[in-house]
Amino acid sequence: MANVPVTPLLDTVHSPADLRKLSPEQLPQLADELRQETISAVGTTGGHLGSGLGVVELTTAIHYVFDTPRDRLIWDVGHQCYPHKILTGRRDRIRTLRQGGGLSGFTKRSESEYDPFGAAHSSTSISAALGFAIANKLAGTPGKGIAVIGDGAMSAGMAYEAMNNAEAAGNRLVVILNDNDMSIAPPVGGLSAYLSRMVSSREFLSLRELMKKVARKLPRPFHSAARKTDEFARGMTMGGTLFEELGFYYVGPIDGHNLEHLIPVLENVRDAEEGPILVHVVTKKGKGYAPAEAAADKYHGVQKFDVITGAQAKAPPGPPQYQNVFGEALTKEAANDPRICAITAAMPSGTGLDKFANAYPDRFFDVGIAEQHAVTFAAGLAAQGMRPFAAIYSTFLQRAYDQVVHDVAIQNLPVRFAIDRAGLVGADGATHAGSFDVTYLATLPNFVVMAAADEAELVHMVHTCVEHDSGPIAVRYPRGNGTGVALPETPELLEIGKGRIVREGKKVAILSLGTRLSEAMRAADTLDARGLSTTVADLRFAKPLDNALIRRLLTSHEVAVTIEENAVGGLGAHVLTMASDEGLTDAGLKIRTMRLPDLFQDQDKPEVQYAQAGLDAEAIVDTVLKALRYNEAGHGGAGQAASA
Amino acid sequence: MANVPVTPLLDTVHSPADLRKLSPEQLPQLADELRQETISAVGTTGGHLGSGLGVVELTTAIHYVFDTPRDRLIWDVGHQCYPHKILTGRRDRIRTLRQGGGLSGFTKRSESEYDPFGAAHSSTSISAALGFAIANKLAGTPGKGIAVIGDGAMSAGMAYEAMNNAEAAGNRLVVILNDNDMSIAPPVGGLSAYLSRMVSSREFLSLRELMKKVARKLPRPFHSAARKTDEFARGMTMGGTLFEELGFYYVGPIDGHNLEHLIPVLENVRDAEEGPILVHVVTKKGKGYAPAEAAADKYHGVQKFDVITGAQAKAPPGPPQYQNVFGEALTKEAANDPRICAITAAMPSGTGLDKFANAYPDRFFDVGIAEQHAVTFAAGLAAQGMRPFAAIYSTFLQRAYDQVVHDVAIQNLPVRFAIDRAGLVGADGATHAGSFDVTYLATLPNFVVMAAADEAELVHMVHTCVEHDSGPIAVRYPRGNGTGVALPETPELLEIGKGRIVREGKKVAILSLGTRLSEAMRAADTLDARGLSTTVADLRFAKPLDNALIRRLLTSHEVAVTIEENAVGGLGAHVLTMASDEGLTDAGLKIRTMRLPDLFQDQDKPEVQYAQAGLDAEAIVDTVLKALRYNEAGHGGAGQAASA
Repeated sequence: MANVPVTPLLDTVHSPADLRKLSPEQLPQLADELRQETISAVGTTGGHLGSGLGVVELTTAIHYVFDTPRDRLIWDVGHQCYPHKILTGRRDRIRTLRQGGGLSGFTKRSESEYDPFGAAHSSTSISAALGFAIANKLAGTPGKGIAVIGDGAMSAGMAYEAMNNAEAAGNRLVVILNDNDMSIAPPVGGLSAYLSRMVSSREFLSLRELMKKVARKLPRPFHSAARKTDEFARGMTMGGTLFEELGFYYVGPIDGHNLEHLIPVLENVRDAEEGPILVHVVTKKGKGYAPAEAAADKYHGVQKFDVITGAQAKAPPGPPQYQNVFGEALTKEAANDPRICAITAAMPSGTGLDKFANAYPDRFFDVGIAEQHAVTFAAGLAAQGMRPFAAIYSTFLQRAYDQVVHDVAIQNLPVRFAIDRAGLVGADGATHAGSFDVTYLATLPNFVVMAAADEAELVHMVHTCVEHDSGPIAVRYPRGNGTGVALPETPELLEIGKGRIVREGKKVAILSLGTRLSEAMRAADTLDARGLSTTVADLRFAKPLDNALIRRLLTSHEVAVTIEENAVGGLGAHVLTMASDEGLTDAGLKIRTMRLPDLFQDQDKPEVQYAQAGLDAEAIVDTVLKALRYNEAGHGGAGQAASA
Repeated sequence: MANVPVTPLLDTVHSPADLRKLSPEQLPQLADELRQETISAVGTTGGHLGSGLGVVELTTAIHYVFDTPRDRLIWDVGHQCYPHKILTGRRDRIRTLRQGGGLSGFTKRSESEYDPFGAAHSSTSISAALGFAIANKLAGTPGKGIAVIGDGAMSAGMAYEAMNNAEAAGNRLVVILNDNDMSIAPPVGGLSAYLSRMVSSREFLSLRELMKKVARKLPRPFHSAARKTDEFARGMTMGGTLFEELGFYYVGPIDGHNLEHLIPVLENVRDAEEGPILVHVVTKKGKGYAPAEAAADKYHGVQKFDVITGAQAKAPPGPPQYQNVFGEALTKEAANDPRICAITAAMPSGTGLDKFANAYPDRFFDVGIAEQHAVTFAAGLAAQGMRPFAAIYSTFLQRAYDQVVHDVAIQNLPVRFAIDRAGLVGADGATHAGSFDVTYLATLPNFVVMAAADEAELVHMVHTCVEHDSGPIAVRYPRGNGTGVALPETPELLEIGKGRIVREGKKVAILSLGTRLSEAMRAADTLDARGLSTTVADLRFAKPLDNALIRRLLTSHEVAVTIEENAVGGLGAHVLTMASDEGLTDAGLKIRTMRLPDLFQDQDKPEVQYAQAGLDAEAIVDTVLKALRYNEAGHGGAGQAASA
């Protein structure tokens, strides 16, 4: 390939053991080659770039100093791990990142012993590192837990819970705070402001000062009132009191691109007798690649690009993305209704709310990576008469499940949930798939759960959410582009719990929820062509179900199939439950439920993933034909061969 | 009633408006009467006592100073709200607390406009208060949000997320930290140690000092480096830097039982132009009632008791509680296996793990109210070869749902979940019911989900969890006492995914999961007596299902009924899904799924709740008979009257 860089030193490094044979003087060159290789690889595959570039030196230094994989290194979120993958024996596959069958874009246990804990959601690393550290402590075996966590990830409550429990690990726990003042969007909140003050108000510590601070015997904070004065004096120059108040030794801030500082400091941290230690490292997202450094998002996530120019491949022109349809629809609604608020957890652009934020900054709330707070804050707004939209990806809403149950559903408060990235998500893989929300929401009393079949439906559903003041309501929609239907000038108010017939037939009924509708229509064409007249319904609501419509479809067709982009327990389960409640199965009911399979699917193109999942038109046709063959074989015949 | 105290002043107070007519000098007497009334009421009903007694003066002062209900007062958790209920128009019903049809033991929106936000789970109050404050700010209407939160609740990440976002509320947000150094158990972690140091290292501030601190113009922290020195100097004497670093003005610590201090300080906080303000109030749990003050748990939760002696009504002797069976079983297992660890989130005695903690303190981890951290910490332990048990109530496991999905299920790590309080829970009501765990766990790939039918089964299942190293496994069991079966000397290793036949019959099959088994057996007696020979199976596993057993039962009986203590989407849904996958419904299948109803049930005696839910023996018999009548009416007959 034209752009593969020349990397004579990196070529000799097949594992951290090789790295450790180098002299410290060789490390800057190695880091430079590692950076070029990272840029080249992501230029080929697309993916997360800026965060990886920010930790090239840190990655090099950690593997040089610590005894990985025995020391357990955990990258928070994991999207900054490409240089780590290159150094830990995966360079030969680095240009398969995020492709079907290739390397994951995050850390993954099954890939390497150097990935002791997978990630992709934020802020789990300190808890996991603590688990490793304590397990080794109990077993009396060597090995530390090392968490590398960004300043944005520190805004999540989970990181705080872990820090609050860290003291028991002693020197077996090392937390490296990778402070680039930027996660995906600029970070928010008191902690972020605190870190900024710390960094901006002073120079980096000199090596001599750092060495003094991490000398073998670190002073123990707060053991006596006498010491307190010292502590605060130290806090004043060092700035680490917040962490020290939670039981850490604080070291920093350090320039995270200066290997001459990083190596000796980490060596001292490694050898310290006391702990846990938090090392505050300041890095620059996108470091060392001019187009990334110049971009507002520091090339957080990119398409394939030209390494020389930095020009990213453009997506072919197509229908608008669901996230933008949502953002624009809500912004329009907000023009007419001052009660509408929008809340995101650190995803202002991913949710499409950047447009809303510009138009109505007072009613827009980016709470940071803090989904729990986002939902209960929304509940408070709703209780005081506002019409809040909590726009959270399906997979991240899992983090606020108790708040959804306890603060929203039990109190029947009209919080509106805009659930993006529902269903399979392509290159991000299993950790980002939105596979469970229909199940975990539709089981809750009081909830209305909708899924949009296309982008026009999404506009109607946003409007329906706005007007629904009697309790919680959710609309789910997928990652990616719409189907290309015209967007409505004026959105419709949908009747709660009513589906629609999209196509009338006689023999086969397909009951669809969400964007599998287009595949259902394709399947209907095929079935019709084979003489199997097919009805297609878009149920719109997983809860409440349109019992009348479903009852009619089930009892007036030879076979009925439900389809949804959700795991077991969702629409299909609710339809079956309703059917058995009503005794519809008593006299015979040929019904099949199509859903996501009972496994976590690796990354691939979405259409490949859906084919693997058995949720495309071909699979629908196949399911219908198989069900009808049962019929042809007669009751109790071959189709029930498995029964006793 | 003999013990109703004489309360001449309290008798004149029917609402906070009445309270505000009193002079400050009358408040200590009012508080004293309020305390006596609280003690008397809880003596009659049982419930939470210690925490309410600790906030009698604080409750009085807040309602005296602030403009409730326009100022929105939110009690975190809400179990300390009995004095609040007495002062806000609910005194006439206070002796119905926690009884069926009576007042809730927590705050509840439907009860009173003085309960703007219900609670029962911990650490939601700051987020909710912020929602109220911001809504009023946007609308330009008066009204603050006031959160009263305990030091234990501050250990949850959610509280931190909220504090991190508080600055935007300005002086419309007031957080009162009620520091009694004790939640249910003694609190744990760095924050708790920090608060203790703050309180122990100095005297309460004098009124003069306090007044200086809360004068109208509070100094703004950290606006310049010059100010920083002042700040840290102030931190040294005031101790509030952790909160100030997150953007709060810190006031305290204050003696929370001294109304002469509380009233003027809160008045100044009310009138301050800047904010948000955190007021650190130190209280004594159980204050003013000698038996409570003397008890280790400060009468956190009590049975009915004699007010004079403090002697609590003893439960009649009976079978052991599930929680203790679990705790003892795990402690025995741990004697033979040094890899077993136990983790609780602030419930060492509620989970029955106190015994384990005494026997194996090194392998016992109370992480505080931090379920998210608990689960991912357990995942880290498991990844390093330990055999961790995360013992968390069903309702609280909701708070760690993303960690269950992302850190445990996706990575297929063998974390063992001991899920107590599954199903309906009696006096604690809807917020504590464990209604959803079968649904939200069984939808996840890789998970094994068990439910114990009795306490002997629980012992087998704990053993089965210990030995299951290939992925996550959960066992759920209810609140309360076992059925009285003999406990096994040696636990059995159950085969994963295999149920058992408890009773063989021919016409009716009852497929039970969990402790409804005893009702299923009762129902079978009734049905047998009516000539309907009944099979009862204990499926043991909601996932993986015993497909062979279920298939046989469904196809060899005239009617099959599933029953579980869980909402829609659980066992019944999975059985129906399997049946339709296999085409078992094609030729006619009379099956009904019995589950919790689609509503949040209020507190009552558990047997009443289960009768209301339609999950007792009578309801099973009724369901079977109705299903069979459908049959008698013929296919498509009366039973399907509702169909088109």
